[in-house]
Amino acid sequence: MAKVRVESFTISLDGYGAGPGQDVDNPLGKGGEELHRWFIPTHTFQSVHGDAQTGTTGVDDEFAARGFDNIGAWILGRNMFGPVRGPWPDDSWKGWWGDNPPYHVPIFVLTHYARAPLAMEGDNTFYFITGGIHDALNQARAAAGERDVRIGGGPETIRQYLRAGLIDELHIAVSPVLLGSGERLFDDVDMRDLGYKCVEHAATENATHYVLRR
Amino acid sequence: MAKVRVESFTISLDGYGAGPGQDVDNPLGKGGEELHRWFIPTHTFQSVHGDAQTGTTGVDDEFAARGFDNIGAWILGRNMFGPVRGPWPDDSWKGWWGDNPPYHVPIFVLTHYARAPLAMEGDNTFYFITGGIHDALNQARAAAGERDVRIGGGPETIRQYLRAGLIDELHIAVSPVLLGSGERLFDDVDMRDLGYKCVEHAATENATHYVLRR
Repeated sequence: MAKVRVESFTISLDGYGAGPGQDVDNPLGKGGEELHRWFIPTHTFQSVHGDAQTGTTGVDDEFAARGFDNIGAWILGRNMFGPVRGPWPDDSWKGWWGDNPPYHVPIFVLTHYARAPLAMEGDNTFYFITGGIHDALNQARAAAGERDVRIGGGPETIRQYLRAGLIDELHIAVSPVLLGSGERLFDDVDMRDLGYKCVEHAATENATHYVLRR
Repeated sequence: MAKVRVESFTISLDGYGAGPGQDVDNPLGKGGEELHRWFIPTHTFQSVHGDAQTGTTGVDDEFAARGFDNIGAWILGRNMFGPVRGPWPDDSWKGWWGDNPPYHVPIFVLTHYARAPLAMEGDNTFYFITGGIHDALNQARAAAGERDVRIGGGPETIRQYLRAGLIDELHIAVSPVLLGSGERLFDDVDMRDLGYKCVEHAATENATHYVLRR
């Protein structure tokens, strides 16, 4: 049966999944780029972003790669789609990723404000879902078919799906950095009570990787 | 110059330094024992607790050992000394550690309630300090001389010293377990703002070790 997965979600040693002060120049908040030092150099990331000839291989890359394996749809919180808050002033914001985003499957964006679907290059179509997390997951499952749904983030989106008992598996990377403030992944969610356990872990110079399942 | 150090302080993947529900049967709170799976089997722990012939060597043991190296005094929060809350009903509680505790230097216990010093075997004397964290540190420094002071914990004690800018170095171990709730080390303390950085890290099968300095 198709799963709902969180993949390559990175937190700092002090627990933050994004730094404070997200804006158009800081998609991950201040200091957030440091979190992804394990991910950016990988062959997987470099390929997804256009250069299939470069990038590191090894454990970091294996975790990056499995994050794209068998994924048929993504769900993103609105802040992960962009810095716009409140009603959409127009359709000019088209994500952080340029003309050809790295998803290549349907992407469902959680928002309180309706907007027409946005079709971009590379089979990337963004659907804006105002009906809440269950509606988004139903639509994502339908689009994914037998493949899995990946919950991209951010932290609050993941927590909503965790609390609803809807996530089958999480790969969390902990980077050896301190962000000090921002948005935490594990705030107001009792992972033990929800039945999650760490079933696999592996460390590299850049991060420690954990796989959590119920 | 003598330092103030936190050593071998272990948190769960979700950030908790102790589980919920500390009592006489659960010194580290429910599930807290799981945190210390990296520490208990080490030669250092086994030696400190009386059996110098056993225990593992390697990275976990090296981190455990440096935690006792050059320490001239300890500071403990009251909950780390015991489960008694409020005024001391009598002097019967003598710590979790039996007749010969593992410190072998003066130990300063932060409390709101005065109590006479408690001398035990193995050069272990507990002093009960009602004057606050600065008073405790002054007394600990005087006792330690040229050696360092170790802040044992728990989380709230460490945070108080962090916020006061008094800790030079922390060794934090992250265990691959989820505690779900309890007391967090990095709540209400902005480690980045305080100037701490991760300067060293190393992983084993049992934990990832981080050294933080200002």
